[in-house]
Amino acid sequence: ASKLLQHHILEQTLTRAASLRGGVGAPGSPSTPPTRFFTEKKIPHECLIIGAIESAFKEMDLQIERERTVYNISGGCTALVVVYLLGKLYVANAGDSRAIIIRNGEVIPMSSEFTPETERQRLQYLAYMQPHLLGNEFTHLEFPRRVQRKEVGKRMLYRDFNMTGWAYKTIEEDDLKFPLIYGEGKKARVMATIGVTRGLGDHDLKVHDSNIYIKPFLSSSPEVRVYDLLQYEHGPDDVLILATDGLWDVLLNEEVAEAVTNFLPNCDPDDPHRFVLFRDISSFSMEVRQQDRFSDRLDGKFDSVSFSLILFHSTVVS
Amino acid sequence: ASKLLQHHILEQTLTRAASLRGGVGAPGSPSTPPTRFFTEKKIPHECLIIGAIESAFKEMDLQIERERTVYNISGGCTALVVVYLLGKLYVANAGDSRAIIIRNGEVIPMSSEFTPETERQRLQYLAYMQPHLLGNEFTHLEFPRRVQRKEVGKRMLYRDFNMTGWAYKTIEEDDLKFPLIYGEGKKARVMATIGVTRGLGDHDLKVHDSNIYIKPFLSSSPEVRVYDLLQYEHGPDDVLILATDGLWDVLLNEEVAEAVTNFLPNCDPDDPHRFVLFRDISSFSMEVRQQDRFSDRLDGKFDSVSFSLILFHSTVVS
Repeated sequence: ASKLLQHHILEQTLTRAASLRGGVGAPGSPSTPPTRFFTEKKIPHECLIIGAIESAFKEMDLQIERERTVYNISGGCTALVVVYLLGKLYVANAGDSRAIIIRNGEVIPMSSEFTPETERQRLQYLAYMQPHLLGNEFTHLEFPRRVQRKEVGKRMLYRDFNMTGWAYKTIEEDDLKFPLIYGEGKKARVMATIGVTRGLGDHDLKVHDSNIYIKPFLSSSPEVRVYDLLQYEHGPDDVLILATDGLWDVLLNEEVAEAVTNFLPNCDPDDPHRFVLFRDISSFSMEVRQQDRFSDRLDGKFDSVSFSLILFHSTVVS
Repeated sequence: ASKLLQHHILEQTLTRAASLRGGVGAPGSPSTPPTRFFTEKKIPHECLIIGAIESAFKEMDLQIERERTVYNISGGCTALVVVYLLGKLYVANAGDSRAIIIRNGEVIPMSSEFTPETERQRLQYLAYMQPHLLGNEFTHLEFPRRVQRKEVGKRMLYRDFNMTGWAYKTIEEDDLKFPLIYGEGKKARVMATIGVTRGLGDHDLKVHDSNIYIKPFLSSSPEVRVYDLLQYEHGPDDVLILATDGLWDVLLNEEVAEAVTNFLPNCDPDDPHRFVLFRDISSFSMEVRQQDRFSDRLDGKFDSVSFSLILFHSTVVS
């Protein structure tokens, strides 16, 4: 899937790159009609690249849907992609992986995670507007804990899609259903099933022992952040790091930054051993997970690590 | 409406304040059942106040809906409210007014504006999921300009609810409909009708010469920001400023801050003339609007100014 996603992104961005040189309908293209009777929105070139990446993610997800029976592939994945074009880095993330830039020892987050907690309002809003997706088994409302039958008629705190705070409501029969979003932190789940709310695939995923599909709640849209490489000075040890949740479950951004910052300056810039680091960090995070003192961070969750390190002054390693 | 909203907020927050002292179901209340067989989410006290304010806005909007025929009141309004409780300021905004704090000459934004442009994705998502709200007259997609009939079958840039960038699509018959969101900056409108997307009232507002209601697209939910007064030192000239769009159309945050910062220190802290300032700023912004050199900022828009200035070391003035 990672190769195919690359293909989709290449295809989409190449079309866009052609647009940047003045294709039909592109911003500033010579064939744009005169704007005498209507105004035309000026679209920055950057937005064409972002749109191309967004389209590539959508295309990839549709291709997985089409071909999943042919290749007999089930399941889904998180997706984190970097595109370098015209002096800018475009970091696109759909899922719970994470990208950070380390510049002069400072951490610059380049993505945010999509989980039942961070996407609560989107998920609740969808369920509120299309309640049939809940299959009469779930409620879109959030409560501080499971509501018990004896509490019907009593007042309890709740949170709806358009609230960030908590208010009281009188408990009704419907509130006894299992909540759409339940659990906290790493244990938060959508319909008691999945803990990541964006990504690719999972078209056949259902709530256990039911006919309720999860996919309508999963989005394949990435969040795309742009980093202008020309706007800053970069030293030989400045890097972009991409890694899956397995790493971030056990190490904080600052700990990863420290490991990288302590390791890289001790290597000759041309020393291929510089690249051993990423294997070190991966295995370090593996070891860390065996240790009791990190059990709080893991909270019963064990995931593998994929890790890429991109030196701004060197070649790509992964 | 402003007095009634105050009443709703008072009612809601007083109930919450009682909760803070340990009412039934409140966080840490003695009657909370043992958490042996289920986990209970810990809800910070702050979230109860935010929830109370959110509920008050909802209640106010429902009351306007109920009583609008009785009192023969049509129309709607923007709403910006400050609640001071237990050392914290809660600034709740639904609409295009703005609140800023000026602390030691520095501007701290305490709200963001809700317009067709800032709420594009919410509005498009709603229209996508409930297309009947568009009355067969509008399309939820955004295009850089009006699509012309001769362009059907050609490719054009567009933006959907789940995109922040722009991508190409082949124009279909449906894309000829008027866009849900059209116009830029101060001229941006929802269904060619309204330029503010949150607030109270407007229950009967329809698209001109049609039966299409605007209200489903308007939200009465405020964004609530919290400012901890105890976390910072405040000088005698530090203030919270609340004002409607009429002021911010002509003056930048920094210009208002400068006017306040230059004026206040010249008055004795007990001088009631300190409070003349807010009238000065209002009339200054009125004058400014007559001047040609500010016509860019106004872009054809003329709104009146409501202005409140709250000195942290003094009493409330408005």
